[in-house]
Amino acid sequence: MAKKKAAGGSSGRLLEALRVPFGAVDLSTFDPRATTGFEGDKEAGKVALAGLGDEVSDWQERLFAEGRSGGTRSVLLVLQGMDTSGKGGVIRHGAGLMDPQGLRITSFKAPTAAEKRRGFLWRIKQALPGGGIIGIFDRSHYEDVLIARVRELVAPPVWNRRYGMINDFEQELAENGVHVLKCFLHVSAQEQKVRLAARLDDPTKHWKYNPADIDERELWPAYAEAYEAVLERCNTDAAPWHVIPSDRKWYRNWAVTTLLLETLRELDPQWPKADFEVEAEKARLAAAL
Amino acid sequence: MAKKKAAGGSSGRLLEALRVPFGAVDLSTFDPRATTGFEGDKEAGKVALAGLGDEVSDWQERLFAEGRSGGTRSVLLVLQGMDTSGKGGVIRHGAGLMDPQGLRITSFKAPTAAEKRRGFLWRIKQALPGGGIIGIFDRSHYEDVLIARVRELVAPPVWNRRYGMINDFEQELAENGVHVLKCFLHVSAQEQKVRLAARLDDPTKHWKYNPADIDERELWPAYAEAYEAVLERCNTDAAPWHVIPSDRKWYRNWAVTTLLLETLRELDPQWPKADFEVEAEKARLAAAL
Repeated sequence: MAKKKAAGGSSGRLLEALRVPFGAVDLSTFDPRATTGFEGDKEAGKVALAGLGDEVSDWQERLFAEGRSGGTRSVLLVLQGMDTSGKGGVIRHGAGLMDPQGLRITSFKAPTAAEKRRGFLWRIKQALPGGGIIGIFDRSHYEDVLIARVRELVAPPVWNRRYGMINDFEQELAENGVHVLKCFLHVSAQEQKVRLAARLDDPTKHWKYNPADIDERELWPAYAEAYEAVLERCNTDAAPWHVIPSDRKWYRNWAVTTLLLETLRELDPQWPKADFEVEAEKARLAAAL
Repeated sequence: MAKKKAAGGSSGRLLEALRVPFGAVDLSTFDPRATTGFEGDKEAGKVALAGLGDEVSDWQERLFAEGRSGGTRSVLLVLQGMDTSGKGGVIRHGAGLMDPQGLRITSFKAPTAAEKRRGFLWRIKQALPGGGIIGIFDRSHYEDVLIARVRELVAPPVWNRRYGMINDFEQELAENGVHVLKCFLHVSAQEQKVRLAARLDDPTKHWKYNPADIDERELWPAYAEAYEAVLERCNTDAAPWHVIPSDRKWYRNWAVTTLLLETLRELDPQWPKADFEVEAEKARLAAAL
């Protein structure tokens, strides 16, 4: 079962390499085609991703066991990015390596009237992972300072207040044992165009296409500015941001899965100790019908 | 994408072969070591299970796409069985072949006081899969006529009334597009003893062991009787029962996954047609920034 990597490896390296430095953020300085921390081509990347499966599953099961034994720690992977950046692909190919019993995946759409009435963080809190679970958010509370800001769904003082509310909320999460891993899937406008065209060319992908996608695309500069504000104002020690170069799907999938693996290694969950007398139970079982 | 099997195959065969005939049920006539519908050994079984991945994933995505496009059909896999029968193993190895985004897995523990007050089906209804989703219940409303009956948690008239309530409920589900697939994982008392001993022998599995498991085991004949009542009284055309021989883990995993695959083939979800003008959108995209 235990498939921990050999000591002296690259533990934590990608978490540091992709972490957004504190301070002002200029997205144009992040290369969406980079393959930071990986040496090799697409084929090697796919092999490397599959190769993470055993270790990430083993850590997941340890965390799950810890939760079943009363532990309250959990992981929350927050995925943000423009349309076609691959939030779904990361879940399918990365999270798909793990046991679905230990995952809680939530895809956030436009909030309902009842949800809005309770404040933007309410539905987020409803979806938090319990102890031992790896939660994954496909979009999140960050939409409330992204589309809400760009589309002017609320007044500027409202979205402006939210950055601080988000930081306070994420600080609380950290204190309560929810380890937040935030990933911005950074795709270029050119690559998005290629991917939207591919959806239009393939009848089995038409269901993924929405004419409104092009309307959103027209607002690309405003979204870039809103993302820069997020990466600058909500980048904290409690919940730092990572930018994932996402023009290459294979790299994106490998990178996010590696960040998750490094996060689990740092949490280092251990198999729970028996809270019963092992030898006595063996004797009881042997004597049982 | 499309990986439908060749025509003229064994579609539906295992669903029929493992289906419980209507009428009185005597569990002792079901062999827990059988490998019904499979020719080959353990290694061949593992290879065959992995070989189902592409087709079952393809059907799952079609169903998911149907749901995203307004479809209300879903699948609900109900897993029941004695401790160690492998409900979790089926989810890990069978459901684990699919995209976790399209799964909704619920593990039912003892109900809370607040849940009991609302009637035993309330929490079940809260956990039903939405359109396009494959729901999986690890234990279910059947516990309310199993442990509740064996342990006398409620009076006989109460659990006795529930069989009819369950049949009415499942009939409604069928009418509402929820395709229910019920599987009883049939493990022998001897095999359970081996598996409990294995948990006690392996410190990485101690967290799965509970001394109360032996207490439950002492009630094996009463549970067998309660399962026979379920398989007899809640075996309907709307939601028939299947008995899965489960002393061989590899067969159990292959069989349940095959039943799920055959169910999806019968539902035969198709890629949704575009609700926009494809050529017009291609032109818009080409002209966009």
